[in-house]
Formats: sequence, C-alpha cells, structure tokens
Amino acid sequence: MKDLTNTGTVRPFIDQDFLLPSDTAQYLYHEHAAKMPIIDYHNHLPPDEIALDIQFENITQAWLKGDHYKWRAMRANGVNEAFITGTKTDLEKFKSWSATVPYTLRNPLYHWTHLELKRYFEINDILSLSTAEKIYIETQKKLQTAAYSTQQLLLKMNVEVICTTDDPIDNLEYHMNLATQNLTIDVRPAFRPDRVLFIQRNDYLDYIHQLEQASEMTIKSLNDFLEALHKRIVYFHQHGCRLSDHGLENMEAEAFTMAEVTHIFKKKLDGENITIKESRCFRSAILYFLALMYHEQGWVMQFHLGALRNNNERLMDSIGADVGCDSIGDFSQAVALSNFLNRLDKDDRLTKTILYNLNPGDNE
Amino acid sequence: MKDLTNTGTVRPFIDQDFLLPSDTAQYLYHEHAAKMPIIDYHNHLPPDEIALDIQFENITQAWLKGDHYKWRAMRANGVNEAFITGTKTDLEKFKSWSATVPYTLRNPLYHWTHLELKRYFEINDILSLSTAEKIYIETQKKLQTAAYSTQQLLLKMNVEVICTTDDPIDNLEYHMNLATQNLTIDVRPAFRPDRVLFIQRNDYLDYIHQLEQASEMTIKSLNDFLEALHKRIVYFHQHGCRLSDHGLENMEAEAFTMAEVTHIFKKKLDGENITIKESRCFRSAILYFLALMYHEQGWVMQFHLGALRNNNERLMDSIGADVGCDSIGDFSQAVALSNFLNRLDKDDRLTKTILYNLNPGDNE
Amino acid sequence: MKDLTNTGTVRPFIDQDFLLPSDTAQYLYHEHAAKMPIIDYHNHLPPDEIALDIQFENITQAWLKGDHYKWRAMRANGVNEAFITGTKTDLEKFKSWSATVPYTLRNPLYHWTHLELKRYFEINDILSLSTAEKIYIETQKKLQTAAYSTQQLLLKMNVEVICTTDDPIDNLEYHMNLATQNLTIDVRPAFRPDRVLFIQRNDYLDYIHQLEQASEMTIKSLNDFLEALHKRIVYFHQHGCRLSDHGLENMEAEAFTMAEVTHIFKKKLDGENITIKESRCFRSAILYFLALMYHEQGWVMQFHLGALRNNNERLMDSIGADVGCDSIGDFSQAVALSNFLNRLDKDDRLTKTILYNLNPGDNE
Repeated sequence: MKDLTNTGTVRPFIDQDFLLPSDTAQYLYHEHAAKMPIIDYHNHLPPDEIALDIQFENITQAWLKGDHYKWRAMRANGVNEAFITGTKTDLEKFKSWSATVPYTLRNPLYHWTHLELKRYFEINDILSLSTAEKIYIETQKKLQTAAYSTQQLLLKMNVEVICTTDDPIDNLEYHMNLATQNLTIDVRPAFRPDRVLFIQRNDYLDYIHQLEQASEMTIKSLNDFLEALHKRIVYFHQHGCRLSDHGLENMEAEAFTMAEVTHIFKKKLDGENITIKESRCFRSAILYFLALMYHEQGWVMQFHLGALRNNNERLMDSIGADVGCDSIGDFSQAVALSNFLNRLDKDDRLTKTILYNLNPGDNE
Repeated sequence: MKDLTNTGTVRPFIDQDFLLPSDTAQYLYHEHAAKMPIIDYHNHLPPDEIALDIQFENITQAWLKGDHYKWRAMRANGVNEAFITGTKTDLEKFKSWSATVPYTLRNPLYHWTHLELKRYFEINDILSLSTAEKIYIETQKKLQTAAYSTQQLLLKMNVEVICTTDDPIDNLEYHMNLATQNLTIDVRPAFRPDRVLFIQRNDYLDYIHQLEQASEMTIKSLNDFLEALHKRIVYFHQHGCRLSDHGLENMEAEAFTMAEVTHIFKKKLDGENITIKESRCFRSAILYFLALMYHEQGWVMQFHLGALRNNNERLMDSIGADVGCDSIGDFSQAVALSNFLNRLDKDDRLTKTILYNLNPGDNE
Repeated sequence: MKDLTNTGTVRPFIDQDFLLPSDTAQYLYHEHAAKMPIIDYHNHLPPDEIALDIQFENITQAWLKGDHYKWRAMRANGVNEAFITGTKTDLEKFKSWSATVPYTLRNPLYHWTHLELKRYFEINDILSLSTAEKIYIETQKKLQTAAYSTQQLLLKMNVEVICTTDDPIDNLEYHMNLATQNLTIDVRPAFRPDRVLFIQRNDYLDYIHQLEQASEMTIKSLNDFLEALHKRIVYFHQHGCRLSDHGLENMEAEAFTMAEVTHIFKKKLDGENITIKESRCFRSAILYFLALMYHEQGWVMQFHLGALRNNNERLMDSIGADVGCDSIGDFSQAVALSNFLNRLDKDDRLTKTILYNLNPGDNE
C-alpha cells in the first residue's frame, strides 16, 4: 500500500494551478487568461440588485436564494424542500447545503463553491456540515462590509460588461438608473422573448395584453404583434441592448406563409385552440421575423438549444417554473438549424449568431 | 528507434495497478474499492447453476456456453458458427476463442479474459492459439476441484448480493431451494417483464396463457391482466424480490385512457391485429401500471434503455434470440423519460429508479 | 510566473514524435505504422490529374483550388469570397489562406498544413501572413521540378492503391489511360451513384438521359433503369472497380414492393411530382438492389452517413454544390441501418461493408 502523504505526488486542494496540469496551461492561464476582464453576454444577474448596490445579509442570500443548481443537488441528496426553498432560516438552509457539498465531489458545484470561498472570502476550509456555522458567521461579517456590496464584488471580479436577461415587456428602469451612476461596469439588457413564442400556453393572452401596455398600442393582428415587438426592440436598443437571447428546446424553421401565420395568431386572439402543428408554424415564423429585426439593428442573436424544461410538475405547481427541474434534452437540431440560418443568409440578412447546445454529446 | 525493452517505461502486462495511472487512483482502489463486496443488482447468472452448486466441466462450459459477447467477437473474426454455438467439441470451441483473443486488444473482452485467468486461475500467460491447449488443461483440472464450484467461485469474488433475471411466469423454484441452504450470498430474483410488453409479437397469446397458469387465474380483460401481474409481483416479493428490471429500446409514455387500453388488449385477446400506434399506447399504459405496483411494494425499478435487439434474423431463426446480435441504438430518450417519471412523481408515486443507457453518446 | 523557455518541458513544434506521447506510441508508429503503404479506398483525387501526371503551377493550385475545408476556414475567418474561389491571383489567395492559418490552431487543418510543408517541401517555418510570400516562392520552385509531378508526389507518399470517386455515367477514360502506363500505383475507380438516388431533384431526368447514353440503352421503366445500372457496374468492374461509395444523410430501408417502386419511377419519368414518402420508398429499394449487385460482383460497399449537405443556398447558387457548406448532421441511424444490413444478410447476400458516420457523437 502506498502512503500518499509521503510521496509528494498529491497536489494541494485547489491551489493556484487548479485544472492546469502542464507548464503550457499554467503559462497561458496566469500570463493571459487570468488578466482578462469578464465580458458576460449571458447571465441571470438581477439588474435591480446591481443598480441598488445591495448588500447580501448573509451567504444564504448570496448563494442559495436563487441558485437552482444548488437546489437540485440538495434535492438529489434527499434534503427536504423546506430547507431549500421553504420556510427554514437562512442558517438552517446553509447547513443543508453544506451537508450536501461533500457529495458533489466531481460536480462543478464542488469546485465553484470552494473557488468562491477562497477567492472572495479568503476562506480555505472545505465546506461541510462541520465547518458550516463557522463559515456562515465569517462570510456574514464580510458581506456586511462595504467591500462586499454587489457592485464592489463585480469590480473585484474584474467584470467589464454584463448583459442581463430581460423580457420584452420589461421597462428597464434599473438599467436607466444604472445609466445615471458612475459605475465603470457596463450593465446592458439582453432581449429575451421566450414568452413571445409560447402560444400554446394558457396565459399567452395575458402576455399579449402586457405587451400591449409595454408597447403602448393595441394588438389585434399579426401585423400589430410584429409592430409591438419591433417597438420593444427599438426601446431596448435605445437603452443599450445589443443582443437577444433565446432558450429553445430545438430550433424551428418550418415552411410558412403570412396568411397561415396571420390566421393562427387570430385564432389564438379569438380564444380558439391552436394545434401542435400550428404552434410550430407560428414559432418558425416569429423566430424568422425576430431574426430579421435583430439584423436590422445590428444585434447579435444567441440561441441556447437543448434544454428540456420544467420536468417536474409537482415542484412547478408548488414553487413555480425554473426551480431546478430542467434537464438535458436529446433533440435533433441540425436540419432545422440549417434551414433557419440559410433562410436568413440567402437574403444576406443573417446577423452575428451565438449557438450553444446543452447536450455535451452534441458539442464534440 | 527506441528499444522499449530497455527503457523501463513499459508497464508489466495487467499488474496490480492495471487501469490505475496515479497514486491517488491506486490508493483509492487498493485501500477502498478492492475491499468492497459485490452487490450486483443486474446480471444474468442462472439461479439453477448457483442452487445446484454445479462444477463446470471445463473453461468452455464456464466461458463460452452462454457469453454472447465472446460469440460476437468470434463471428467478427470470421469463425464458423459450428465453432461458436454449433456441434464442435469444447476444446475446439476454446481454441477458436483463443485464436480470436489477440484481435480483441483494446476491447474489454481482452482485459476481462486475462484478469479472470490471473485472478481465479493464477494463470499469467497471454491467451492465443499457441497457449490455448495448455490453458484448457490447466483450467480443467482446477475447475474439477471443490474450490471451483459455482458457489465457491462467487464467495472467492466476495459477492454479497446477486439479483438474477426472472420472467414473471417463473416459479422461482431455485430461489426457494437457495433459501433452504446456508449460503452466505444473498441470491434474489429480479422481476423482468419484457415479454409482458411485446403485444405485437405472434407468441403473445401463448405468453398470456403461461401467465394465466403462473397466476392461477383466467385473463379475459385488461383488469384480469393487471391483477395477474400484481399477483406475480406479490409472489416475487414473498420470495425476496426487491427490484424490477426492464430492457427497452426507448421509454414510452404516451397519453392513454383506460378505455383505449382495455380495447387494445381485448382486440389482441380476440386475435385481431394491433397497430403500431396501439402497441405504443398499450406499452405506455402497462409501464405506468407496473411502476405503480413497484412503488406500492417499495421496490426499486431499473430501466436499461437504448439496445437495438435481434438485428440478425438469420441467426435468430437458426440459433434463437439474444445470441449476440444486439447493437447500440440511437433513440431519442429524454422527452418520454421525463413524461414517464413526471407522471408518477406528480402523485408522489415514483419509486427509487435506476436508469442506464447503452449508447455512450448519451452517457456523457 | 513560469518561464517556459527554460523549463525544457515544451516539445519542439511538430517533431518526429508529434501526437505520440508515450514510448509505446512512438515504437508502434516508427517501427510499424510509418512503414505501411497508403491504401486509400476513399478520396477525391481527380483521375485526369494523375493520368496526365500534371505539375502544379504553384501551391495555390495544389492546396486551394479544390479544398473546401480550407475555404470554409477562410470564410469563418471573414475572408472575402473573391480571395477564396473568386478572381484574385493565386498569390493573393495563398496570402489569404496564410493569414487564416494561425487561427486554425487546434483544428486538423493546422497540423496538416505544417506536416505537408515539412514532409514534402522540407519547410519548417510556421505559415502566416509574414511567411506567406517566401513559402509561396520556395514551393513554386519545387513544384516545377520533376520530383513534384502528381505521380512522383504519390510515390513519395508511399501510395500503393487509390480508389477515386466516379459517377456511374463516367466513361473512365483516364483509368483506361492509366492502365496503359507503367505506374506502380494501383489507381482504380470507385462507383459513386449518389445522383441515382436524387429522384426528388429537378435535374433527375437529365441524369437518367445521361445514364441512357452511358449504358447504351433506353430507360422506360424501373427494370430498364436497374439493367442500365447493372451494365455500368459490370463496366466499372471491367475497368478495375472493386468497391462502391455512397454519401447519405441517413440509410433508408423502408418496406417496399416492386409494384410501388415501378409506379414511383414511372411517375417520375412521366414528369409527375414525387412525394417525400415516395422518394424514401424509391431510395430504400434502389439501395437494396444496388447492394445485391455489389454482392454479385464481390465488391465492398461503403457508406458515409451523417453529412448535412449544401446548407448555404447563397453559395450553392453562386459557386455550386460541395463548396464547403456541408455540416455534421444528427440523424438517427441505427434502426434503418439494422434493417438494411439484415435484409441482405438474411438471404446471405450482404457483401463486405464499410460504414462511417461524420458525427463524432455517434462514433464513440
């Protein structure tokens, strides 16, 4: 048997060369990558928390209030929902997460947790139930100092640009507020019109109504609808937006005629049922028209494909959508994606495009 | 040119650190994994051979009588079927396998073969045609000693639990026999109802008839059928079964009504043809009802997805099913799997579940 | 910070052990693989250029005239089409490629480029805009010497057999010419009947007409069509062909009757429209009949599956098909492939078969 403590071959836990096995990797990281600023065109940071430069009361507020990746790990570890999204205290929730962390070894959550403790809190302990309370108290103290306000944390992370995730109906008030501040970080909205495409949902007409209010016009036809979307894109552009952001199970690019799509949208407005085939035709058309508008504005468009969302009805009904019950899908993507991009390119109206697929089997 | 024999950089063939490249890997394996018992909830060991504690006459009986992975390699190597599953002698069959082994380098068959020779027969030779006869004789001598009976081999492998693979119509007589022995290995049945789902097959009514006999009731309706299955699950539970085992090309979880499924099953009983759509609806329903019964018993359910079976009709007609002509499928799995699990979870009736997919592209 | 230049850990750029990290790899390559001749059963070398033993005027003619992999990298790097397939001079085109090369790092194009410069031109410089002109001149000088004729290059590469890619309507005149030469390289045609299957294309009847001329018979029915194909296969066989070559998005092996396929082909001959379903049925049948003919001749058949072709209509309309706008598809392949192979094997008429799939996710 080998005694690992004496061989000198075991690397210290997450040292400065973590994930950098060779001299070349270390050189490239330390001399180049580490010095680069963060320009993040896809994240879910809340613009109000940045604009108001809030202080987190404790690490549960910073780490566990909205991070459904951590929620998912806790559920897989058998933690009761009361300790995840429920009524337990912040310390109790943090202890539940801390007890889960050792079981996340080899999952990025494990690295991320310890890298964040090390880099932003100078804490080198390994998080587990036995270190939880000590770390909770230590981070709480630091989070209450000025150096740990939202804006100061972003500056410490060398963030240069952030594009938040904003629905077309959003009034962007916090982006306007940020524009009046002297913050050196460029915080911009990103146009995320997922709900525009959900024509099969029961709350779609409510959404159309909200879009009417946001665009200050009535929507009685497909033409009105496209005009309202265009107005919102112009509004977003005026407030600094330069890219859109779509989350789709799979791209849709079926053949359609204006007459068909006009008819489908009218049916929906009249409260009639839309077939699955009609909803596909509708989404294919709207994605195409939005892409034309993005090209017109010179925006970048980004599509993240392949998520299978809200798999768990029980949790969706009790807590809501997007609470950690998404999974990787295994949809065929190539033909529709080719059709979508070609349809725009052949008229030279394909704008810069970012594609990512959540299924690692499709990213080789 | 480098002379490899002098550099000292070539590791000995399958030494104690085989597949363990780092000190950490060696430590984890030797200090922890190697000491763990085997708890095998999915295998195809025949319960009669264990219960009767048989001695294998020779290594062909142990290795080649039922291992269709080895058959497949031999066929790919051009070996005539007579030397695989046919009438040739055991020595001739072993020589055919031995002549094939060198060509399986980089396939797990190669490692497994030599690990088994080393660990259970203390043979360090490399198997090929030139060593075949010597190894055949040496293993034959050992297999005839008491230390090489089926039960002694399992004990030598530190097996703690084995779950065999048993059809719902099986009477489990050898499991009952085993229960009367003092064997320290826990040998349990696993409930494998694949044939219950094969409603499109010509021999399905024969199977229903066998199920009637096993469940001691007549099956004239879907309700009868479900009751018979429930009786068999209870019977299996009484004989130690705690898990089910399904091999499926892909999960099926279409919408269905009881009226539809009742009608489809009745059509089949009446000798009418079932459409592909009807067979999908039927399987979706039966998988759901079985899953409810597993939950009721507190069983674990396991699904291995993605095999494409019996690709070779010629061999199936001449030798039978499951003779090494299965391949990896590339079915989309995510949506149906999500529907299946969610349908059970939303009523809090999802039991513990083991999933595995045979396609490595889906396991990343 | 580490100074990489002093550690001695950085390997020289593409030395003799490139891609060979271990002593075993180096031994296997240098002592065995490196000495093997090239027997290439799939390539796109033009038989006329070999038969006429042409000299390339410069490296642009050798490297950039037909290599749409390089074109694609240049387009992705923003190079104007005039510098790729357009009217710019050969030196200007080479400079555009040279300026692109540094951005292809980690793409095989980068390795291939430098391996070819090193092995066939003894040039060890790294290609970039700054070295472009010097390398252009140096390679131009060498290409004009007798040692760099097409045949001499192939001999230098230790090529033993080449199978080119030839349409059934090809008269194989350059293969006949080659047969009269004393070239020690065996240059054979490969039968590539992709256009035979494109029944949905507008130019299909033109193709049938060309096939009539090549086979010296009229085609008025499916039987005529199959007879004409058979005549071409016999002709190819007489001129040394021993394998076929199919590029397919996905294998097709639907059920069909002769009456159906006869009817579909007749419809097409009569100028009627073919449905998508009919075209699938037709291709399934023709692939089966061709496979029977390959078996009859003792040919090998090869299928490369999974390409999604001609994604870019704009470039196809302006430059033509197969200009670098193909991509990887993500079609399901397993079921149809199983049906196709089984349908032939069950009558023992499955000839030797080579399969490859362009999607790395399917090759694990």
